[in-house]
Parts: sequence; C-alpha cells; structure tokens
Amino acid sequence: MKTSGYAALRCDTPLEPFSFERRTPRAKDVVMEVLYSGICHSDLHQARDDWGWSSYPIVPGHEIVGRVIEVGSDVTQYKVGDHVAVGCMVDSCMSCDQCRKGEEQLCRAGNTQTYNSRDRIDGSPTYGGYSKHLVAREEFVLRVPQGMDLSRAAPLLCAGITTYSPLRTWNVGPGSKVGVIGLGGLGHMAVKLAVGLGAEVTVISRSADKEADARALGADHFLMSSNADAMAEAASRFQVIIDTVPVDHDLTPYLPLLDVDGTLVIVGVVGPIQGTNTVPLLTGRRRVAGSPIGGIAETQEMLDFCAKKGILPDCEMIRMDEINAAFERMERADVRYRFVIDMATLAAA
Amino acid sequence: MKTSGYAALRCDTPLEPFSFERRTPRAKDVVMEVLYSGICHSDLHQARDDWGWSSYPIVPGHEIVGRVIEVGSDVTQYKVGDHVAVGCMVDSCMSCDQCRKGEEQLCRAGNTQTYNSRDRIDGSPTYGGYSKHLVAREEFVLRVPQGMDLSRAAPLLCAGITTYSPLRTWNVGPGSKVGVIGLGGLGHMAVKLAVGLGAEVTVISRSADKEADARALGADHFLMSSNADAMAEAASRFQVIIDTVPVDHDLTPYLPLLDVDGTLVIVGVVGPIQGTNTVPLLTGRRRVAGSPIGGIAETQEMLDFCAKKGILPDCEMIRMDEINAAFERMERADVRYRFVIDMATLAAA
Repeated sequence: MKTSGYAALRCDTPLEPFSFERRTPRAKDVVMEVLYSGICHSDLHQARDDWGWSSYPIVPGHEIVGRVIEVGSDVTQYKVGDHVAVGCMVDSCMSCDQCRKGEEQLCRAGNTQTYNSRDRIDGSPTYGGYSKHLVAREEFVLRVPQGMDLSRAAPLLCAGITTYSPLRTWNVGPGSKVGVIGLGGLGHMAVKLAVGLGAEVTVISRSADKEADARALGADHFLMSSNADAMAEAASRFQVIIDTVPVDHDLTPYLPLLDVDGTLVIVGVVGPIQGTNTVPLLTGRRRVAGSPIGGIAETQEMLDFCAKKGILPDCEMIRMDEINAAFERMERADVRYRFVIDMATLAAA
Repeated sequence: MKTSGYAALRCDTPLEPFSFERRTPRAKDVVMEVLYSGICHSDLHQARDDWGWSSYPIVPGHEIVGRVIEVGSDVTQYKVGDHVAVGCMVDSCMSCDQCRKGEEQLCRAGNTQTYNSRDRIDGSPTYGGYSKHLVAREEFVLRVPQGMDLSRAAPLLCAGITTYSPLRTWNVGPGSKVGVIGLGGLGHMAVKLAVGLGAEVTVISRSADKEADARALGADHFLMSSNADAMAEAASRFQVIIDTVPVDHDLTPYLPLLDVDGTLVIVGVVGPIQGTNTVPLLTGRRRVAGSPIGGIAETQEMLDFCAKKGILPDCEMIRMDEINAAFERMERADVRYRFVIDMATLAAA
C-alpha cells in the first residue's frame, strides 16, 4: 500500500516529506492508521547516524499509537477500530529461549527494529511511525487500554517501557528507595513509574532548578549532585538508580549512593562511557547494568499498569512539519518532557 | 606481649625486621603462633602506599594460618593447640544489618582490617601476619579443617574467599558456565573453586602459553582474547566472569562474552578503571559488579568446602628474609601462584 511520512534521506539533511510503500498485509498482520507518534532522542541519533548503523532513507518513530484499519486473515487479537500501539520492535525469531520467555527485546537472533532495520521475511527496510500507516505482525502490536488518553500514550512505548522494565527486573516496589538521574523523556517516566510502583523516589540532578519539576512529577526527594554534603549523607541510600542521562558522563559520584548489592541501571547512554573507580563497587558489592526496553508482554503489562494508576507522560503536541524544530529543541533539552506528533497534521504538510 | 615480624617503615623502603607489642589478650581473644603467611598483591600495594591510605609502620599479611597458644577467659570456640586462621578482617561493628547477616565484610561502620587499620577498642594500629604472633577476637578466627595441609591453606583466607564469595553470590553450580580472566593468585583459585562447584570453566587470557596451566588447574576450556574469531564465537557464553586482573584494563572485549543477565565481577582492580561501551550492557542486560572477600561464616564454609573437595592453592614457600625478592617477583607475575612465608624462618631472620 502507498503511504507517506517524513524521512531523513541523508545524515546531514533535515527530515522531509517522503512517500513510500508499506507491504501488502500478511495473514498475521495488522494495518494501523497512525494517530500519534512520540519523538525519542534515539530518532534524532539515527536520523543523523550518530551510532553509525543508519541506513537511508530513515522514517523514524517507535512510539506509535493508532487505530486498526485492516487485519490479515489469521489475526485473532485485534479487529478494525481497535486502538493499538507499536514500540521499538516489530518482530523477532520467536523461537529462542529469550523469545519463549517473552523477552523478545533480548532475542538471540536480534529483534527487528521498527525502523532502520530489515523485515525478516522479504528483507525490505522497516519504516517507523512518522508516517500515515504502519503494518506489523499482531504479536508485536499492543492494545491501548480502554479510556487511556491516546494523545499522551505514545511515549509509553519507548520511554515508558525502557524505565518500567528495569524497575521490574530489579524488583522495585513498596519500601524500595529509587534514584533517578536525568529528568528528560525517560527520567520523568522513571519517576512516575517508580512512584506508581510504591517506591520512595529521589531525583538526582546537577541543577537546583529541577527540584520543583521533580516534586511536581511525584518525587519524594531531590538530591543535588553538586552538594557534596548532601551526596555524602545519601551514601548507600538506593537499591536501584535509573540513569537516564543520554550522553557520556562520569558514574563515579553516583556509585557510593547505591546500597549494598544495589544496581545503577544505564538506560540512556548508547556507546562509549568514561572510566570510573572500582572501590565503591568492591566495598559495597555494587553493580552497574544496562537495560533495553522490555518484552511485549511486559510492555502490555506496563500499559495496563499506567491505565490503572493514571500514569501518562507529560507531552507537548507538535505538527508533523515542526519536526526539525522539535529535534533542535530536544537537543537543547527544551521540552517537558516528550514531543508527540499529531499525525493528523501530516496530510496538511 | 612482645613479638616480632617484618614491616614497611615507609613507602619507599624494603620490608625489614620489626619488633612490636601485641595487645594483652582480652576475654574473647585468641592468641596464635603464626605458622604460615600468604603474600597477597595488596600487601605490596599497601607497603608502598599505592592506594594512598597506608599508615606506617605496616606489618602486612592477611592470609594467616597458625596454632592457638592462649585463649581469653570467655573464648568458647577454640582451645590451645587448635589450628586456626585469620583473613582480611579482625573485627566489625557486629550490630548492623550486614554484620547480623554474616556479611561483616560489608559492615556499615567499616570492618577492622587485619593490618593498616585501627583497633575498635583502644585505637591502636593493627599489624598483620608477617609476624610471630597474632591476637584476634574469636568471632574473626576461622578453624582450619582437620587434615588440611597447613602449609598451603593460608592463601585461602584472601585469594580463596575473594573468588569463592562471588561464585556463591552469583549462584554458580553444576550447569553454570564461568569465565576467569587473569591467572594469578586469585585467578587460579577462581578456576579451582568454580570447577569444585561443578561449573564449566573457561580461562580467558591474552597469551597462548597460559593454556597448559589453565588446563592443569582444571579448566575445561581456554579462550585466547587476542583471537577475534574465538572471542566472537564465545559471545553470550558465560553467566559469570570473574575478573581477577589486578591492574587497570579494558573491559570492552569481555562484556559481549556474558550471557543475557550475566555479570562480570571485578575482584582485582582497586581504583580507577578505564571507560567501556554501554552497548553490550544494554543489549544483553549485562552487568558489571565488584565483590570484596566474604563474611566469616562464608569463609568457614569455603575452608570446609576446600577440605572436602581437596582444593588447595599452588604455593611456593619462601623464608621470611626473602620477602622483598618475593615482592619483586610478584610484580613480574613470576609465581605459580601464591607465595607463602614459612614463619618458622622468622626467628632465624
């Protein structure tokens, strides 16, 4: 089927209108009209080939909410009219130990990313949610819970699951003390989700002017990392720290904040990270880990959890033709906390 | 009581004979005649103040095996003539959550190190096992199992427990695949202990000439880290990697060797460590941790386990007056795998 969207044709040009073909739906495919598309920092990175694995043209977008407009003959879970969502992946091998455990994000053969990847069957490039339509196999389609505000749901599909999954993996719940470093798209969701899970949440930031924001998001405490006394007093406080900072930074000041056996989970930096000091790791048996999105079942669990708890990202809605300005503002961290594209504006672009 | 030993009087002088006072035994104290003292790389570091926290004079030695020659009035577990051992710590607060769990090595108030530390009661400096006698409270004294070769037991008290504890913390047992980086004092014990626990063990080394040694120690496999094909083939192989390299090194080549949720445990480097890349952490939810020795109960468990399995370090016995030459050889990694001082040679020094 013919569709249209916005694409980066090269690493050094702005996104621009782009017409392309979506595959003819297969038996297990769901066809959706995209209603909203969240903007993730990684969209910018891949549009500009910051990670060196971009293949052009790139239609970004992996925080996608829409309405089913057609289903393949073997689709059992969705019907025309359903509100659905797609996140960072659209396929995996479905047969390895990780996929069988519902951890498709850890698929041994590598999952198929929603864009900048290749379809497992015909090898065609995958294109993301900055487009009018999306075609995906139903096993990788999520259900948007009844009553959830569609216009704010999209960022849950990446920012939401990326922070929810480590909170669950590291058993955060009532009684847990959780630190969150960085208060952007991921960080603000980490705060809301950890609070929702019953944890005592502290935002750790370099700048005092983030305190009001942190508290407005529900954080119980604010710790200024430039305040040496406050940092010393917070030693061994946290079972888990979710580190959402998207650029290289020094972990050294944060490691002593972990309790014995505590874990700092990196979800932001993709690539080189500077050295640190092993002493706090050794003396407290502390750990540093990474965590990638979450599995499909866990993503559905997260959506249902957010619906039940009334948790939604704070979004700023933009028109499709404002995408390049939004990228620039995102680079300056000038958004609270996630841009969402109203895809109805695409036709007018 | 008067005793004698060998001490570093300054950071830049060799160890030399040193006479000093041990405290008069308290009610819960055990007095031991030191029979054997293992030489740990950290003895050298602290004698030379490599870590910046040395207080002179320093009598090194925290791998100590001896015979009880006197006990305080309230000592219940040991009697004169018992073969006993002391490791890296001789006291802790005994009341925090970690101490109550038997994790005195993680004492919230900081444990008292066997040397280069201060006694909790009278504030006097602690002196280690390179000496004729040692006085320690019975809660920090271990029992050398019946029949264990006393002349080879000493290195278990640091090299043994430092590698045994993470193997237990990360649940290594039959079916586990364990990698060991570095084949020195710690590394050779990691191999023997992991094999003893039933794991499938691979030594990972830069040099092909370590293969015969690795296999002689019981390793099932040998992986040469300079062989790119072999390293690629070993991707995602290990649940746990014990990294015993004692100097700063690059973790980047090793992280992809970890399985999903696998952990690389640093036990060697104390201090700064260079940067790495977050991608293998993120894509496999992999972890990097540190681990310090082990608790007293776990140390006793390790000694009993070694006795049952017939596991002992490979030792080279030296005379006390050969200590400075041994330090130099240790710096060149010229020992297979642990020096032990026959303390009977001290009198003749």
